[in-house]
Amino acid sequence: MKRAVFPGSFDPFTIGHESIVLRGLDLFDEIIIAIGYNSNKPGFFPIEQRIQWIKDVFKDYPRIQVDAYQMLTIDYCRKVEAQFILRGLRTSADFEYERAIAQVNKTLAPQIESAFLLTLPEHSMVTSSIVRDIIRHGSDASQLLPNRMKIKPGDYSFKESSR
Amino acid sequence: MKRAVFPGSFDPFTIGHESIVLRGLDLFDEIIIAIGYNSNKPGFFPIEQRIQWIKDVFKDYPRIQVDAYQMLTIDYCRKVEAQFILRGLRTSADFEYERAIAQVNKTLAPQIESAFLLTLPEHSMVTSSIVRDIIRHGSDASQLLPNRMKIKPGDYSFKESSR
Amino acid sequence: MKRAVFPGSFDPFTIGHESIVLRGLDLFDEIIIAIGYNSNKPGFFPIEQRIQWIKDVFKDYPRIQVDAYQMLTIDYCRKVEAQFILRGLRTSADFEYERAIAQVNKTLAPQIESAFLLTLPEHSMVTSSIVRDIIRHGSDASQLLPNRMKIKPGDYSFKESSR
Amino acid sequence: MKRAVFPGSFDPFTIGHESIVLRGLDLFDEIIIAIGYNSNKPGFFPIEQRIQWIKDVFKDYPRIQVDAYQMLTIDYCRKVEAQFILRGLRTSADFEYERAIAQVNKTLAPQIESAFLLTLPEHSMVTSSIVRDIIRHGSDASQLLPNRMKIKPGDYSFKESSR
Amino acid sequence: MKRAVFPGSFDPFTIGHESIVLRGLDLFDEIIIAIGYNSNKPGFFPIEQRIQWIKDVFKDYPRIQVDAYQMLTIDYCRKVEAQFILRGLRTSADFEYERAIAQVNKTLAPQIESAFLLTLPEHSMVTSSIVRDIIRHGSDASQLLPNRMKIKPGDYSFKESSR
Amino acid sequence: MKRAVFPGSFDPFTIGHESIVLRGLDLFDEIIIAIGYNSNKPGFFPIEQRIQWIKDVFKDYPRIQVDAYQMLTIDYCRKVEAQFILRGLRTSADFEYERAIAQVNKTLAPQIESAFLLTLPEHSMVTSSIVRDIIRHGSDASQLLPNRMKIKPGDYSFKESSR
Repeated sequence: MKRAVFPGSFDPFTIGHESIVLRGLDLFDEIIIAIGYNSNKPGFFPIEQRIQWIKDVFKDYPRIQVDAYQMLTIDYCRKVEAQFILRGLRTSADFEYERAIAQVNKTLAPQIESAFLLTLPEHSMVTSSIVRDIIRHGSDASQLLPNRMKIKPGDYSFKESSR
Repeated sequence: MKRAVFPGSFDPFTIGHESIVLRGLDLFDEIIIAIGYNSNKPGFFPIEQRIQWIKDVFKDYPRIQVDAYQMLTIDYCRKVEAQFILRGLRTSADFEYERAIAQVNKTLAPQIESAFLLTLPEHSMVTSSIVRDIIRHGSDASQLLPNRMKIKPGDYSFKESSR
Repeated sequence: MKRAVFPGSFDPFTIGHESIVLRGLDLFDEIIIAIGYNSNKPGFFPIEQRIQWIKDVFKDYPRIQVDAYQMLTIDYCRKVEAQFILRGLRTSADFEYERAIAQVNKTLAPQIESAFLLTLPEHSMVTSSIVRDIIRHGSDASQLLPNRMKIKPGDYSFKESSR
Repeated sequence: MKRAVFPGSFDPFTIGHESIVLRGLDLFDEIIIAIGYNSNKPGFFPIEQRIQWIKDVFKDYPRIQVDAYQMLTIDYCRKVEAQFILRGLRTSADFEYERAIAQVNKTLAPQIESAFLLTLPEHSMVTSSIVRDIIRHGSDASQLLPNRMKIKPGDYSFKESSR
Repeated sequence: MKRAVFPGSFDPFTIGHESIVLRGLDLFDEIIIAIGYNSNKPGFFPIEQRIQWIKDVFKDYPRIQVDAYQMLTIDYCRKVEAQFILRGLRTSADFEYERAIAQVNKTLAPQIESAFLLTLPEHSMVTSSIVRDIIRHGSDASQLLPNRMKIKPGDYSFKESSR
Repeated sequence: MKRAVFPGSFDPFTIGHESIVLRGLDLFDEIIIAIGYNSNKPGFFPIEQRIQWIKDVFKDYPRIQVDAYQMLTIDYCRKVEAQFILRGLRTSADFEYERAIAQVNKTLAPQIESAFLLTLPEHSMVTSSIVRDIIRHGSDASQLLPNRMKIKPGDYSFKESSR
């Protein structure tokens, strides 16, 4: 059985992430979407909220699981017995960053392989950081989010966060 | 009338920004230099100081205005009825970042167009971040600043900021 | 009047080129699509064919002209009295190349300004070279070409070219 | 059954290509190493020689096949009923090129997926072009070639090619 | 006498830094490894610890010195009468960043020259940031560190830092 | 004695090359400007002409020599007993290419070190290829050439080359 971990902070999960996971189902038998987090740095959206959104998006896909972890990604892969790390590549800046991570992972854990799919052109500009910026300003980011993951404009805007 | 917004944090405005705006006057009838800011993150120079410096630099140019805003850039463009966003491109790292922003803007506001000019070679290394670093250490950054925007070495150095 | 030259070899003109020209009409009053060629290097499609295709594509646009030239682009701009060069940017590799050209042009002809628009995400992978490759193999490239520029699969394939 | 095509000109096959194919065996049940060629452009090494070398390298691997084709890669994938294209990524320059090819392939043949592995750091500088250059000058390229693919220094040097 | 400064935050010093310094000894008569720091931002490892590690690594090399400074790098070069800045280049992202710094340095201090060596392929993915991440999670980063600079797994992990 | 080879095709030598060599004199005791050529591919300017131009440019510099070679650069370095290869870096595209060459050189000849200087910002767009293009069209490239290397507009233009 080919099991892959799709790691990220997913703060929040985007339409680009969704597309990579769905296409990854052709390559792998099982994909674990794993939210790496640091309890000292909470991020923008609460970790429970991020997990719930992703579960909602893939509730009809039994081969997709959702989890969170606080360790090195390779240590998490060993724990869940996954031989593969799945990642999407958007731009050449992405590529340089992903290559460094993947090569260090290969050095520390040679038996774990990183496999990459290319983000679709229409998703190439979608990043969690840009989505957060839109939401923070109270605007509508729904075009950049999965269909089942609706955030209403204003829900997480500055007014909320500065209370 | 072709009106463009030249958005940025301009913390501080540099000789590279000045050059792009002056060359942009050939393309556009009116340019609004608009400082995007976040009242929760004050930045290095106070917003009022940044505005005043830019006003000083362009006081002889009636087609150039200076403003500040706390919203998405495309929402600001709609508010001031600007059809264009003007940006300078320095390096390929710049390019990847600018492309993501511009493509998201195009997705959310298809009627607003981003137009790019290339930074002159002699300005290609000038960034606000490098200028701040020089000033913070009490050194002289005047070669990287517009003529009318003089900051005396020592004015904003560590000693000041750590009081 | 703002007149821009949109230079290229356009061997052939693609859906990406078409999009840049149409969006450029917001910036400029008149755009001359100018095919730079070298009579010693004929290219894949005959120069007359390339001109005709572009004329067909824009026959309803009086502000767009089509021409061909055998000189430096800046010399051509001077000849037709255009103050601007319009170019599309697709990728960071593009960017590096375009920057070198634009900076040399600025050195040799300071009064001519190069302005850039970003290729739409869905066109970012379309190059004349890839289109030629598809056509050469007798496959269907119509998704990458303007609507009014139909090339039938097989018309320019290997069998033809090796007769 | 997951079948992947590993396409290239392999002029010649290098130690970097070998590594990608061997690691690809973890992802795919069967890999076809497919030499795309153009009978009008013979390349440096004869096509038969290139095929033979690759067959020698993988003679102990029943899940690896070697073939040659003269058509678009996606048309070849359809012919051999392969759902995947496997490619290695070395550098960000590579990445930009591979992305354009993969996105055009996705546009023309949405059911075929391109999957990427990263070249190992110690192979990141190995290209067929550099290998040819070494061999052409009569020097020893064996460190850059698979163990079973020995070319003696001088075998394909200038003296040979200019006879 | 050719004296070079090798500046960085070295938080911590890695096997990649070690390799650049040792190779730099062929180019320069004396190399000062100089830790730039900001007393307001302590970093991950204490500055005294970083200095001690580097001294241990190079204790047998009389032509290598270790120092720390709180000023612009070019001001430090002037202070220690070094005509050269030595830097390693790993990736094209590195390159863009290093180029901006070096060009500003050249503008402010034309008599100081920056010289670059390329990181070895097997070190190209090693960054202080990745090393910190491994150590923070209590894992073993010794493959990425100089032989004489052993950090035991767990010494600087989250448990420690969150006490 | 530190001897460096500055290899290239120099077709033709540019103001950017001149600047790198002059700055390289601070690093090295002797620099050999070495034109790599292939007698089967003559290039644009005759090899004798290229050598003569470079000799003219540096006739007052006894520490600079000019030569031509038809072998691998590392084999030439061994022949002239040079321990260093000097190269200039202009852009990140340059960087990727130079890195591959330098890393292969390091693999084949570990005792030879490649050292890099950054092209000055005002020369970052100057390439031999762009200079040839200007000259081929009969225009004036003198701003991109060393002072002592004057080519009159028209001397090498199309009319000449197509006789």
